[in-house]
Amino acid sequence: MRLEVADARRRFAGVRVARLATVSPDGRPHVVPFTFALGSRARGAGSGPEDHIYSAVDAKPKSTTDLRRLRNIRANPRVAVLADHYEDDWDGLWWVRADGQAAILDDPVTMAPALALLAGRYPQYREHPPGGPVISIHVDRWTGWTARLS
Amino acid sequence: MRLEVADARRRFAGVRVARLATVSPDGRPHVVPFTFALGSRARGAGSGPEDHIYSAVDAKPKSTTDLRRLRNIRANPRVAVLADHYEDDWDGLWWVRADGQAAILDDPVTMAPALALLAGRYPQYREHPPGGPVISIHVDRWTGWTARLS
Repeated sequence: MRLEVADARRRFAGVRVARLATVSPDGRPHVVPFTFALGSRARGAGSGPEDHIYSAVDAKPKSTTDLRRLRNIRANPRVAVLADHYEDDWDGLWWVRADGQAAILDDPVTMAPALALLAGRYPQYREHPPGGPVISIHVDRWTGWTARLS
Repeated sequence: MRLEVADARRRFAGVRVARLATVSPDGRPHVVPFTFALGSRARGAGSGPEDHIYSAVDAKPKSTTDLRRLRNIRANPRVAVLADHYEDDWDGLWWVRADGQAAILDDPVTMAPALALLAGRYPQYREHPPGGPVISIHVDRWTGWTARLS
């Protein structure tokens, strides 16, 4: 069953890890897990909030190829982000996908609000603030599915 | 730290759900969670096994747009599949990605071995065999990362 947008956002905001899918310049998909924070701004009456998903390149050891996500976004900003829940009882399955446009922030001033949101969610980022850059995803569309509405 | 291929395969084979990333004809990434089975065939001496990842379109209720994965694969067979493990202690993080080429099987004879593997992994598929089609992914490359080798 389809999830309402508000329910999809709420479920997405509650998970600790999601997966970022990008497309390479030669048309291959790439997907990595990432930690994130959801930032929302109110819009005019009758509109839902404007949502951004933020993720930082952080101090977790990375191999250089892991930065393929950044190269892909520079060439094609369209991304998809997935949160999903699995359990052995398939009546409990659900997933939420955010489709959007990504930008890469590397200026300390523009990164600061995103880094503050990330530090609010993850104690690791409070102890070891990530240097960046930050991936900022403007969400164009929320899509969600659940086996059973709870 | 990079995972060795054998370790990456082993970790991937042990999870119950992974995420399938595809690319739409207009260059947008798409990503969905999926259940899967890993099938391997021995190759000649000195080569690792030849791996296929199988997934079925099953009886779980789907909205029609969920079949975008099939339309995307028909237009561009290159896919990426991600298994990842999250825990609040980031020393325990790991992920494994399989990059490969997907094909769609809809003939009962060609689907049968994949459906048997899926039924062996998931009791739901034994009770309610999926009708198909089956997505069959030939793995070209395993990539994996772990925060700490255990």
